[in-house]
Amino acid sequence: MNSKPGVDVQFLPSCLFCLSGAMEDVTGAQLVAEALKAQKVDYMFGVVGIPVMEVAMAAQAAGIKYVGMRNEQAACYAASAVGYLTGRFASCCPPPPVSLADHGAITEAISVLKAAKRPLVIIGKGAAYGRAETALREFVEMSGLPYLPTPMGKGVLPDDHPNCVAAARSRALLQADVVLLLGARLNWILHFGIPPRFDPHVKIIQVDLCAEEMGNNVRPAVALLGDINAIVTQLLMCLCKDSWKYTSDTEWWSSLKAKMSANSKMSKALALQSTGLMNYYTVFHHVSQLLPHDCIIVSEGANTMDIGRTMLNNYLPRQRLDAGTFGTMGVGLGFAIAAAALEKSENRGRRVVCVEGDSAFGFSGMEVETMCRYNLPVIIIVVNNNGIYSGVDLETWKEMAKMGDLTSIAPPVTLLPEARYDEVMAAFGGEGFLVRTVEELCEALQLSLRNWERPSLLNVLIEPSSDRKQQEFPWLTRSNL
Amino acid sequence: MNSKPGVDVQFLPSCLFCLSGAMEDVTGAQLVAEALKAQKVDYMFGVVGIPVMEVAMAAQAAGIKYVGMRNEQAACYAASAVGYLTGRFASCCPPPPVSLADHGAITEAISVLKAAKRPLVIIGKGAAYGRAETALREFVEMSGLPYLPTPMGKGVLPDDHPNCVAAARSRALLQADVVLLLGARLNWILHFGIPPRFDPHVKIIQVDLCAEEMGNNVRPAVALLGDINAIVTQLLMCLCKDSWKYTSDTEWWSSLKAKMSANSKMSKALALQSTGLMNYYTVFHHVSQLLPHDCIIVSEGANTMDIGRTMLNNYLPRQRLDAGTFGTMGVGLGFAIAAAALEKSENRGRRVVCVEGDSAFGFSGMEVETMCRYNLPVIIIVVNNNGIYSGVDLETWKEMAKMGDLTSIAPPVTLLPEARYDEVMAAFGGEGFLVRTVEELCEALQLSLRNWERPSLLNVLIEPSSDRKQQEFPWLTRSNL
Amino acid sequence: MNSKPGVDVQFLPSCLFCLSGAMEDVTGAQLVAEALKAQKVDYMFGVVGIPVMEVAMAAQAAGIKYVGMRNEQAACYAASAVGYLTGRFASCCPPPPVSLADHGAITEAISVLKAAKRPLVIIGKGAAYGRAETALREFVEMSGLPYLPTPMGKGVLPDDHPNCVAAARSRALLQADVVLLLGARLNWILHFGIPPRFDPHVKIIQVDLCAEEMGNNVRPAVALLGDINAIVTQLLMCLCKDSWKYTSDTEWWSSLKAKMSANSKMSKALALQSTGLMNYYTVFHHVSQLLPHDCIIVSEGANTMDIGRTMLNNYLPRQRLDAGTFGTMGVGLGFAIAAAALEKSENRGRRVVCVEGDSAFGFSGMEVETMCRYNLPVIIIVVNNNGIYSGVDLETWKEMAKMGDLTSIAPPVTLLPEARYDEVMAAFGGEGFLVRTVEELCEALQLSLRNWERPSLLNVLIEPSSDRKQQEFPWLTRSNL
Amino acid sequence: MNSKPGVDVQFLPSCLFCLSGAMEDVTGAQLVAEALKAQKVDYMFGVVGIPVMEVAMAAQAAGIKYVGMRNEQAACYAASAVGYLTGRFASCCPPPPVSLADHGAITEAISVLKAAKRPLVIIGKGAAYGRAETALREFVEMSGLPYLPTPMGKGVLPDDHPNCVAAARSRALLQADVVLLLGARLNWILHFGIPPRFDPHVKIIQVDLCAEEMGNNVRPAVALLGDINAIVTQLLMCLCKDSWKYTSDTEWWSSLKAKMSANSKMSKALALQSTGLMNYYTVFHHVSQLLPHDCIIVSEGANTMDIGRTMLNNYLPRQRLDAGTFGTMGVGLGFAIAAAALEKSENRGRRVVCVEGDSAFGFSGMEVETMCRYNLPVIIIVVNNNGIYSGVDLETWKEMAKMGDLTSIAPPVTLLPEARYDEVMAAFGGEGFLVRTVEELCEALQLSLRNWERPSLLNVLIEPSSDRKQQEFPWLTRSNL
Repeated sequence: MNSKPGVDVQFLPSCLFCLSGAMEDVTGAQLVAEALKAQKVDYMFGVVGIPVMEVAMAAQAAGIKYVGMRNEQAACYAASAVGYLTGRFASCCPPPPVSLADHGAITEAISVLKAAKRPLVIIGKGAAYGRAETALREFVEMSGLPYLPTPMGKGVLPDDHPNCVAAARSRALLQADVVLLLGARLNWILHFGIPPRFDPHVKIIQVDLCAEEMGNNVRPAVALLGDINAIVTQLLMCLCKDSWKYTSDTEWWSSLKAKMSANSKMSKALALQSTGLMNYYTVFHHVSQLLPHDCIIVSEGANTMDIGRTMLNNYLPRQRLDAGTFGTMGVGLGFAIAAAALEKSENRGRRVVCVEGDSAFGFSGMEVETMCRYNLPVIIIVVNNNGIYSGVDLETWKEMAKMGDLTSIAPPVTLLPEARYDEVMAAFGGEGFLVRTVEELCEALQLSLRNWERPSLLNVLIEPSSDRKQQEFPWLTRSNL
Repeated sequence: MNSKPGVDVQFLPSCLFCLSGAMEDVTGAQLVAEALKAQKVDYMFGVVGIPVMEVAMAAQAAGIKYVGMRNEQAACYAASAVGYLTGRFASCCPPPPVSLADHGAITEAISVLKAAKRPLVIIGKGAAYGRAETALREFVEMSGLPYLPTPMGKGVLPDDHPNCVAAARSRALLQADVVLLLGARLNWILHFGIPPRFDPHVKIIQVDLCAEEMGNNVRPAVALLGDINAIVTQLLMCLCKDSWKYTSDTEWWSSLKAKMSANSKMSKALALQSTGLMNYYTVFHHVSQLLPHDCIIVSEGANTMDIGRTMLNNYLPRQRLDAGTFGTMGVGLGFAIAAAALEKSENRGRRVVCVEGDSAFGFSGMEVETMCRYNLPVIIIVVNNNGIYSGVDLETWKEMAKMGDLTSIAPPVTLLPEARYDEVMAAFGGEGFLVRTVEELCEALQLSLRNWERPSLLNVLIEPSSDRKQQEFPWLTRSNL
Repeated sequence: MNSKPGVDVQFLPSCLFCLSGAMEDVTGAQLVAEALKAQKVDYMFGVVGIPVMEVAMAAQAAGIKYVGMRNEQAACYAASAVGYLTGRFASCCPPPPVSLADHGAITEAISVLKAAKRPLVIIGKGAAYGRAETALREFVEMSGLPYLPTPMGKGVLPDDHPNCVAAARSRALLQADVVLLLGARLNWILHFGIPPRFDPHVKIIQVDLCAEEMGNNVRPAVALLGDINAIVTQLLMCLCKDSWKYTSDTEWWSSLKAKMSANSKMSKALALQSTGLMNYYTVFHHVSQLLPHDCIIVSEGANTMDIGRTMLNNYLPRQRLDAGTFGTMGVGLGFAIAAAALEKSENRGRRVVCVEGDSAFGFSGMEVETMCRYNLPVIIIVVNNNGIYSGVDLETWKEMAKMGDLTSIAPPVTLLPEARYDEVMAAFGGEGFLVRTVEELCEALQLSLRNWERPSLLNVLIEPSSDRKQQEFPWLTRSNL
Repeated sequence: MNSKPGVDVQFLPSCLFCLSGAMEDVTGAQLVAEALKAQKVDYMFGVVGIPVMEVAMAAQAAGIKYVGMRNEQAACYAASAVGYLTGRFASCCPPPPVSLADHGAITEAISVLKAAKRPLVIIGKGAAYGRAETALREFVEMSGLPYLPTPMGKGVLPDDHPNCVAAARSRALLQADVVLLLGARLNWILHFGIPPRFDPHVKIIQVDLCAEEMGNNVRPAVALLGDINAIVTQLLMCLCKDSWKYTSDTEWWSSLKAKMSANSKMSKALALQSTGLMNYYTVFHHVSQLLPHDCIIVSEGANTMDIGRTMLNNYLPRQRLDAGTFGTMGVGLGFAIAAAALEKSENRGRRVVCVEGDSAFGFSGMEVETMCRYNLPVIIIVVNNNGIYSGVDLETWKEMAKMGDLTSIAPPVTLLPEARYDEVMAAFGGEGFLVRTVEELCEALQLSLRNWERPSLLNVLIEPSSDRKQQEFPWLTRSNL
């Protein structure tokens, strides 16, 4: 997440040095609180515990909201989300200066783009953070280029935009001859920008506000350094001059569309499989139908995050938060709490929907108490396959338990079958739903969406061995090298 | 905890470097597993998650037990406990060498002890770790000296031993003129060994196996460097020569006994208060009556740990685990899982009882799923006052919620009133009890003790504003300096 | 220094991991050397020692020049200088992308400048590193603004330019109402930009390529983020539109000129004091008369660097290297070796003149052997006052030595009086001069400048208690707060 | 070096935080000085520079001696030597406690020793630091065992003791079947205790005061933990009981003596080679004849340290300081300054002789000014072969210089031929000698030894390609694995 300032000032570590003594009549805690307030910190996240409570109380007295959580880890995740969601520091420093790319480089980028046979725009989290949505929509529509969002780049342009080729992601990455990389990093999420997932001769036009990122993993054909929004505007103005457009009747567009249609058909088929328990595709198909377009989607997990990324659409920028660059598990509930606390205190009507794998949920599951305590409008959907990648069903588990010590024989990917995460939510006064069928899923989600009074959790039991559809390439392609 | 080796080898970090590739037909994961097995590692704790599962599977194949937990944090705590409980490395390296104190220093120590008017023995965790219990009992009984255990030193000698003066702790520390410090550190738990909690002229005989610890905070009158058990044996043999004994008819013993009796009376009075909800003393009084003498007590919390320390007896060494030197919250469930896994796999019949404050429980509360998954014989007692130090009752909370945004007005020490931690346990198939009265408490604990089949949790709702009895000195005396 | 890449790749640490073994017929050392060559590393600095020699030999075989020095410390300083002097990485990565400031911010900056009554341009090291000299000269001359260089900003515009107000530095900083800060940091060298050295209401227009620097110590009125050269060009073009000029008949210019003239007079008076030994001003006055305008000046020391900064002019950019932001002593000889090695290998005819305090010289004095070994055209001028700030004369020293143990009574600021640093140079075949008078100084410097064959060192004995002229403010103003 | 306390308290870093402000009339500098004095710090080493001078002055005022050096690096080395030489902390904390080994382990060790066919005692730096010399001499003489000192273990027993088998070092290490390791570490100096330099079946009796060292690299047959002196005394007393002795008529003694005699002959032959320039053996042969038995030998370099170690005898404990465990170059002059300052201030009559390779000398060569400033009785012998391992002669160098840029073609192991390090000493008023022949060497050393008034430096030019005699094993055996 780009919001380092947010992390630093809004998380209250419980190892905070005890400020004892008092200067005249001001305590150390008050000094800390006043200093943070002067820096325009509005939210603070820490634990309900010692020895932070004096500072927390002083912060509240100074007008800072304090969200007391159950573990410093989750509190830290929450704090980091606030910076990203609010562009926080924009309201304090004056607004941060904006820098533009060099005109020559802009021209060169446009000429590389025009010469492309199979161009592709990749929209990264940086474009979301840089609030480039308006300029970017104009640029994409004027240029006619196909685009692909990274996970947290989803929603900068709506996922159902005709130029979005997310449903042909693998082909788009592999066959593109020119990539315009907008605020995205060539990390594992983008397979480091190298074969076998990318064409070895692909030309990268790298747009980033961080000079040190230029050339990481792949040397760019053109590097545009500066503010993403400003640079997209520059590109757009350059394009305007001769009203060039990449037409939709190209072979590349045909190939992408064919693949998208095939993939959609396959996903739909998987989604509508009607035998036995649901699989990931069924769950996400129905969830996506019901979610309001303006909801904030938080997501983490293995298959849950991967498949959900392609099946759950975002329509607005900065409304998707997930495990990010490092694939950190356990961030989801903290992120959701931060997003919901902001929504609630600013009286906006958007729902926060937190889509969790069951393993992922466990990292900070106790934070449902925090949600209930503050009555935060969060809907958690636990896609529960009794483990990570694949669990076992209850019968098999019982057989296994009879065979001996489970620490010796239970596969390390399995969790307790049919664990009642819904009851964990209910234990704190939230609404818990146990869901086994499509009907139960739709009903529970509709009820949850209607209910603004308290958080809810849908514990969706799916086929334990459910997996994603066959991939052409293994995970973490780099290890193939 | 002294068991650094345990931490290092038995915790499987999930950031473990991906060992890709294979040498002939051996994978990297197998190499790691074999190496750990060769080091005689029997237990491994990690998460149910990526990317540790390959190593975990290889470890199981090599005969290592793998406990898959919900968060690396708790897994790490569990691993650290194994070293302490088993003296683990003793079974591998040859046994570690034992060193003795210098004979001259032993003689000097004995002569300082003999000259004492108000002597005190402090038994630390080091004495437990060093397995000094047999020699120590003989030493205490032969010398007739009063002793005081530190939290994790409890049980090296039984807490109901006639020479134990724990019930007069403050007076013993304050008025002792000579302290024999056996494997204990003069940290915050012992008020750094300085006034106003200690006599400024107290003479310390420091016994430790770590040279760097000598003279930390207070310069010792005599320093005995070496193995605790060996040194206690040396002291004992020196004492035997002239059969000196500190008689029980001294003024010091009278003063200590008077204070113990007064304190016991006061605790009992608090314990038997019959109006309204229970307080800490009531809970611990009844729990202590029912717990078997050989149970392992794990404890953490603020008041819960502090008061429980004086009210819950230990009778055997290395059967108390708590938040330790740094007062780390969140360790309890990890420790309990480690202790229970050992008990279970070694088929010993001891119960693990985990006494948690409600705030403390929240740090790793999801680990109850781990307990249920492996059917570990753990009884969790959550002493629930709706917060830390003091919560508010449900009515007050509801009033508060009506007044505005809780992040602005709820005291940062409060948690959701009457949170149903018992239902969290039930959600995973364990036994949950909601307890409000002495009768319910006793019945639930008796049922839990009888039930060997699954873990249980007693959610004991006490008076939210319950506090400990008035202290003569504030917490963390050092800040007074 | 901005050249972190330079530091990293061009310094060969002697702790380099031993690369044993060979893959087919390529040694580890060859792999390292080839990798560095591929990164276009041309120079490598390390020690003459173990275990770097294998890599050093492989580097030479790969066409990299290896300068073997006497201590890793000096080698590291040398490596860092190469990046700065060559803009090294410009020749490899494509050229680094250039970013521009936002047009609106440019307009705002110009309007703030126009509204200024007492404007000041500060030219920092960043302007030198960014090669902004051409645009900057045009901007200064077109705008008519007074400017002040920071130490390593000296020479971007010549120090004798009519708009340079370095001789009225304190007044310029104190009374300016608007400062255009070009690639300079508000660190201790610039008194952190705060009173009593700056007007509390001064408006800063901050130009920097590093976003994190914006607002450090002082919140800027306008922040221009991007490449210094590009931004100066933007400012210039904006200025061109209406040909505004800050006229030389303002009160501000009169005040600055009056102060410059008074200060020059005072310096000159100090320089021409004819009694006894020379002082700093005398030395620098005469040295400055003889130095060619294109020489590279390296400088370090306390008074030597401070006074030399104002008395020794630079006329060309990137030809002054000194102790920099952190005032690190010991950097001079390493810097000089790097600069001279570059001059020599590129067959340019510029001399490197290294002006050292005697204490500063001692940190890496043995590097004169390196200079002699490679026949580097360096002239070292040691301004020798027998210590730091002030030493004692030889007679006093001898008296002191008779009084007792010198480690107890010698002032910690004193070095051996009249130490013959010139003989250290002579010991390795360089030319050493002992200088006591103006005539000896001029003759020795003229001889050294004429001699291209070998390095030389002028050991200039000055009045031991010589000090700079009275300052209005103490050193490190911040400590006044 | 074992003297961490020494490092920490006696070195004054020049980055010391500026203690501004004053409490009543005490400055921060005075507070620091008084605190150090209270800790019984007698010596302080720092630079002549900013910003340490205030603290240095306050230290002198408090009665602490301040040695102002030329570089923090050398100052730090000097500080570390003081702790080792004085056992410094022994005079302050009470004396540190002494711990003994377990009696059973002592008995076992003795029985392993008695069963040995080819026993060997290795005497390490720990035995010197632990002041075990008296007990150790009795132990060695009573047991009749052969012993080998590590570099800094030299002199604990005199090198010419009949039981010393240093002259057959390789054979002793390789063929010993039992090694009694007294305060020595199995690091690179001892070839990690493994084949091909050790017998794979060798039994190690490890004696160390640091538990963590036990079993490093090799698992010991017996581990004796505690104070080296105390443990040697324990071993001695155990031995006394039945007056066992390893007789000198064994095959092992014969084999060792034969090898010692052969090696001595070879060294002598090399030493007496009379053609051309001297080699290492010639130099050390003659130096060893002239050095007084009580002189302190400091040494560093590659061949200089390695060969000097076997050729220069020590006769008293703690009178050899060298590059130590990590082979750090540049320590010699700092160590020598510390040793000489102690000698001088305590009015003992021992000389400090610092035997340096020419490369090693360069790391801190400027410290000769420090020696001259304080008139420290140090004799530096630079064994000068124009480089490291092997240099080139002056003619070859001149030819090479004509061939092109020396940074491209000069071997990275070469320094300037015939560099006049003697003149560097003379430059500061010390005595410098240029030495080319045996006669010059002997005369210069005799003069230096007679001269108590000032430091001297012998610049001994030896055959540039001089090397040590053929080794059976390459350096750093471990890389063979």
